[in-house]
Amino acid sequence: MTINERGPEGDRSYAAVSERFSMPLDEAMLTQRAVRKVLPDPVDDEIVLRCIELALRAPTGSNGQNWEFVVVKDRSVLATFARRYRSAWRIYGGIGERVTAGDPSMSKILAAVEWQVDHFEEIPVVVVPCLRGAVRFAPFPTIAQTSHYGSIYPSVQNLLLAARAVGLGASLITLPLWSVAMARRALGLPLSVQPICMVPLGWPRGRYGPTTRRPVGEVVHLDTYGRQPWRGVERADSQGAAG
Amino acid sequence: MTINERGPEGDRSYAAVSERFSMPLDEAMLTQRAVRKVLPDPVDDEIVLRCIELALRAPTGSNGQNWEFVVVKDRSVLATFARRYRSAWRIYGGIGERVTAGDPSMSKILAAVEWQVDHFEEIPVVVVPCLRGAVRFAPFPTIAQTSHYGSIYPSVQNLLLAARAVGLGASLITLPLWSVAMARRALGLPLSVQPICMVPLGWPRGRYGPTTRRPVGEVVHLDTYGRQPWRGVERADSQGAAG
Repeated sequence: MTINERGPEGDRSYAAVSERFSMPLDEAMLTQRAVRKVLPDPVDDEIVLRCIELALRAPTGSNGQNWEFVVVKDRSVLATFARRYRSAWRIYGGIGERVTAGDPSMSKILAAVEWQVDHFEEIPVVVVPCLRGAVRFAPFPTIAQTSHYGSIYPSVQNLLLAARAVGLGASLITLPLWSVAMARRALGLPLSVQPICMVPLGWPRGRYGPTTRRPVGEVVHLDTYGRQPWRGVERADSQGAAG
Repeated sequence: MTINERGPEGDRSYAAVSERFSMPLDEAMLTQRAVRKVLPDPVDDEIVLRCIELALRAPTGSNGQNWEFVVVKDRSVLATFARRYRSAWRIYGGIGERVTAGDPSMSKILAAVEWQVDHFEEIPVVVVPCLRGAVRFAPFPTIAQTSHYGSIYPSVQNLLLAARAVGLGASLITLPLWSVAMARRALGLPLSVQPICMVPLGWPRGRYGPTTRRPVGEVVHLDTYGRQPWRGVERADSQGAAG
């Protein structure tokens, strides 16, 4: 069963696709997946803006809303990140191939990332969510990091879900940002603004199957780690809309 | 206009509320907000498990799925976190009051957190999302942190959205975790498992108004930071389902 339809073949304007944002929540979540192979065809700015507008409804620590979103469409900026992505992938992808040798689902993921690495300049839109302000949560340094990233990744997930609902291919990557200094230069970011991740967007090429996940009973613990009363319990509708 | 209805008054079983998980995606996002004042009434385990099951569909770095979710219902464990929350709040809340004096919307948030601090033991369920494995993304230390937290907060946002859809009050907090050693002891977590945040869940008390957000044109930059072509542009349906 394939669950991610190709983007609309005909009219891909905001007006033509906007009602898709009302996809049932559980269906959007159950059918979300990284879609890395996308067409070079342009994406209507209004669609991208609406996805980001929905991203802005996510929570931020102390309601700081200290986020900025750089929408990259300029080919030369993308080419700069493509070079960084390739140089990092030569190292990271090589490790991945050795570590995951013989695991067919990981091999598929690696092949899709490889495609993205090779075609990065052709991706029509890449959104770069950023945070203003350094990691700090004085007087509690132990939770400073988690509170910092907890103020941006919920919005990134809204962005990914909104893209999925409207039929846009999307994925969450960080590897092209491995040189933060280069990323700041390429995007004109001041030192006070940290690029957090990248979300390449485009109309999907081809079809995609469902994801697989560890069963909920295996990852849930009751009151104390290791106490797993729901382990092995078959849940009637555990596949939900993806079943 | 109030947008968060009270939880169902009568039957609050999974069977009675499960169709709410199919709320339109955009409506769930546009009406999401921190709901801290919750009733002590129990929440059906099946509902909590379904929220976590939907959380598990979010992406993780290299598809690691290295997450664990501790569901805390034990009053004595909650009392331990309540004490830590109170001691941290004496410091942090005091700073907050001085910094936000005269800002009515922040005063409301502070009052709601204060309520949560005072009633933490009465919250029926607190979910603690955790990550196995330390922050590491060799050979790229610069993106190790962001990749780490990017493997859990998307799932936390799914959890929050699922709770919102089904009518459960939820919020995202980190302050009770300021002593990571204490949190590990209270939850029986091995050193290899890091508690990331807490999501208190319960049926809402009272009604809640909509959130306010910076307009999308103010936070979006095109290709380079500071270039904001959509600044001041009024978007026709910018309020969407919340309008």
